[in-house]
Amino acid sequence: MHFTSEQRLDDSVLERAFTLGEIPGILWTPASASASLPLILLGHSAAGLQTMYPRLLARARYAVAEGYAAASIELPGSGERPRSAAVDQARADLHRALQAGEPVTDDIVDRLILPLVDQAVPEWQAALDALLARPEIGGPVGYSGGVISIGTRLAVVEPRISAAVLFAGSFVPRAIFEEARQVTIPLHVLLQWDDEGNDRQMALDLFDAFGSKEKTLHANMGGHTGVPQFAGEEGNRFFARHPK
Amino acid sequence: MHFTSEQRLDDSVLERAFTLGEIPGILWTPASASASLPLILLGHSAAGLQTMYPRLLARARYAVAEGYAAASIELPGSGERPRSAAVDQARADLHRALQAGEPVTDDIVDRLILPLVDQAVPEWQAALDALLARPEIGGPVGYSGGVISIGTRLAVVEPRISAAVLFAGSFVPRAIFEEARQVTIPLHVLLQWDDEGNDRQMALDLFDAFGSKEKTLHANMGGHTGVPQFAGEEGNRFFARHPK
Repeated sequence: MHFTSEQRLDDSVLERAFTLGEIPGILWTPASASASLPLILLGHSAAGLQTMYPRLLARARYAVAEGYAAASIELPGSGERPRSAAVDQARADLHRALQAGEPVTDDIVDRLILPLVDQAVPEWQAALDALLARPEIGGPVGYSGGVISIGTRLAVVEPRISAAVLFAGSFVPRAIFEEARQVTIPLHVLLQWDDEGNDRQMALDLFDAFGSKEKTLHANMGGHTGVPQFAGEEGNRFFARHPK
Repeated sequence: MHFTSEQRLDDSVLERAFTLGEIPGILWTPASASASLPLILLGHSAAGLQTMYPRLLARARYAVAEGYAAASIELPGSGERPRSAAVDQARADLHRALQAGEPVTDDIVDRLILPLVDQAVPEWQAALDALLARPEIGGPVGYSGGVISIGTRLAVVEPRISAAVLFAGSFVPRAIFEEARQVTIPLHVLLQWDDEGNDRQMALDLFDAFGSKEKTLHANMGGHTGVPQFAGEEGNRFFARHPK
């Protein structure tokens, strides 16, 4: 983990860009850093870190104000990272199906999401290794938002993640439903009821499939990017209810 | 409106029992009463005021601490009020169908719920008349919980109610779905995902049917009476977000 830039925001937040091998990332901590902060990993969409930056920063500011460190890394195929022709083809097929009003087939969803999950999950785990090795970060670790299939797999395979806020805002491969049944950590799931690029029934079925005894679904009106501010705050209160 | 008893709880809450004609009710206000308090009407199930009292009191205490008056009245056919043989028969038919694992027919739901809604809604409106005539209560008025069909009809016909927390915990007649489309006030709907006496898909369809632009669904694990404390607090924050 190599820091490439550093700036203080409003004298309250220290923002540091880093690279982890070829993967860019950002770490936010309180400007007056104490030791052993709990950590929230901020997931995001394949739109890329730079495009998502304003929304990530808003979430990071809130997390830091509540006494957490927050961090995010670029997804495979996003930003400046090498693209996958096969995944790009699947994304084009998805958009074509949605625009034509045709059903989104399992095949398209599998080709779009599974390679992303397979590559991204070990990268988030490597980032977690590097972050937890730092003296200012101690854990526990929460995961919040982003591609829900990545959050689901992470919740299953990564025992250091103790709670997750998941955003039901993308199509989910059948194989991930099976993994969802193995999730046991507390979950807080956000759903935009009229998400234009998502299947509402699939999201409800996925919520039902999660094996966690404590899971909450918060559904709000509006499209993919219309999550109300109060819904984000409820997600933060969910982390606050779980032991730091 | 005739007060029949009065007691102070913890020096912070004034609890007054009242009758409105033949209907018993309870009003909770801050012990040091200011003028023109906003009001939350506390709905509840047909189990009756006395049975529901501990849970109503907990909700009332929270409302009073947040600067509201809170009030509730007995439902038709509950507590000491005259029972309806036809509604009792419908309730017996419902329990028989549930125990036999048979489908709950529209006929049973209509016979159980519609007479209750028809009688209870004007009673809540009469209670509202009497409560808003008191100097310590000024409005606006929120409605919270109880039989969701009653809350739905009230939200349509009673313009003095400006926001509602609804509990999707009872079967809903088809006719009420049509009324739900006419609801326009902000809604916060609670659903217990594994409610034993409720149909989850019906609850999701009802949430979808509400005409309100601002509506939120909070689903939690567990049965009918298992609403987590944090879910109740989120309902209170919903009222706090709407102008007092």
